Amino acid sequence: MKIPFTKMHGLGNNYIYLDLFKTEYEEDMFPVIARKASDVYTGIGSDGLILIHPSETGAVGMRIFNKDGSEGWNCGNGLRCVARYAYERGLVDNVKFQIEAKSGLVHAEVLIDDGVVSINMGEPRLERALIPMIGPAKDHVIAEPFSVADVELELTAVSMGNPHALFFVDNIKEALITELGPSIENDTRFPDRVNAGFVEVLSPTEMNYRVWERGSGITEACGTGACAAVVAAILNGHMQKETDIHVHLSGGDLLIKWDGQGNVWMTGEAEIIADGILYI
Amino acid sequence: MKIPFTKMHGLGNNYIYLDLFKTEYEEDMFPVIARKASDVYTGIGSDGLILIHPSETGAVGMRIFNKDGSEGWNCGNGLRCVARYAYERGLVDNVKFQIEAKSGLVHAEVLIDDGVVSINMGEPRLERALIPMIGPAKDHVIAEPFSVADVELELTAVSMGNPHALFFVDNIKEALITELGPSIENDTRFPDRVNAGFVEVLSPTEMNYRVWERGSGITEACGTGACAAVVAAILNGHMQKETDIHVHLSGGDLLIKWDGQGNVWMTGEAEIIADGILYI
Repeated sequence: MKIPFTKMHGLGNNYIYLDLFKTEYEEDMFPVIARKASDVYTGIGSDGLILIHPSETGAVGMRIFNKDGSEGWNCGNGLRCVARYAYERGLVDNVKFQIEAKSGLVHAEVLIDDGVVSINMGEPRLERALIPMIGPAKDHVIAEPFSVADVELELTAVSMGNPHALFFVDNIKEALITELGPSIENDTRFPDRVNAGFVEVLSPTEMNYRVWERGSGITEACGTGACAAVVAAILNGHMQKETDIHVHLSGGDLLIKWDGQGNVWMTGEAEIIADGILYI
Repeated sequence: MKIPFTKMHGLGNNYIYLDLFKTEYEEDMFPVIARKASDVYTGIGSDGLILIHPSETGAVGMRIFNKDGSEGWNCGNGLRCVARYAYERGLVDNVKFQIEAKSGLVHAEVLIDDGVVSINMGEPRLERALIPMIGPAKDHVIAEPFSVADVELELTAVSMGNPHALFFVDNIKEALITELGPSIENDTRFPDRVNAGFVEVLSPTEMNYRVWERGSGITEACGTGACAAVVAAILNGHMQKETDIHVHLSGGDLLIKWDGQGNVWMTGEAEIIADGILYI
């Protein structure tokens, strides 16, 4: 079977993309292709598979399959790549369009000249029940005492379609990401598990951010996590609203902007690595 | 810059291949392409880059670049892939031909129907000076007491163009590969460093083999190492000569045959994963 693919990355978050406008597949092939394509030893090598498909509600739709073949929900770095692909390959003819993701409609604004893409990531959800986190349903979780693995932390919780637990640290290099990540991810107070993010505030407009991703461990970059980190920093009074915040991740930089309410905007690069045919 | 590539693997040992019969490059581009193509985050993802080029002494030539852009010497799994590519893509018109590798001429016998390729890997070099290993130049190193990191081992040393230190163990799962690999690799008795191989004899025609590769650490499979392991097993009287020995590696199986002198033959799969264009 010959499978046309494009490999793209945003901040090193790399996926194999299938263009379903050109080629259709049986539904049960996607987990198979995801596992094969993601395996660097016997396939291409990637964080997973993303489908770019015709949509009734957006200009294009996207679906994500993880390395293990399970379906994912949303991926900020993947969204920027889908936006760039859709614009450069002529699936849309406007620099502003909507992408239908499994977590809902996303407004993509594509600035294509230098590979930079801005995405409206929607509103953060702060109510405890929407994170989701166990406790009083309507409360926000901001600088709440949180003990895990005998360490006392202060937790701020933000959902950007997926759940993020944020912790502020004095020095990102000394953050106990590997040590505490698994315990936080699987803490029973988060019924859907949680991504664990660590933030070092450098100035009111600049931060270092590292993440332990639910189901993946330490990754190079997490777009929704960077949005959640900026929202958490603004809620805690550490950062400025209504201005671009420079977020330094292992894989590169993102610009995140939030007005203190309403939608979060994420701006960053999206790179086309290769086009090809995968044989499976 | 658009770079046509093919990704192939033998037992999970995966490389990006460039066909220099079709496209030529400046010499100083190869390390750049090797680093970019090998990086799974921002490139394709591979163990390195292999060039398939016109040769004056063989039907085709091959050169290997490691992930870091340095040039390598030989790779048994890569040889099988080059042989299959050369035959399937019409660079040769015979099932028997010679490949020029940096370590010398190799006779490739291609059995293409089921993706299986047999390769004449040349004669093992057993003299101590040719391993190379410090000590009496002409001696062979067979079951020689060898102490490393306070552990007493018995060493057999074989060069298949690259140096291999072989150790027989009762149970491959309990072999101290990670613990002893780095110490053996960098032992001062091996002036060019050494690959550390561990062998569990299952029967006179079957073994488990695991390797700590010089410069790479634990890998899925090492073709020259599997040859060296069979030579060492025959020299120690553990295995039969003149018959195919089944070698089980992490990445899959190889058949290795040695007559007790002369050339070693290696038979195994070589898979074409994908064709594409890399943008750098």
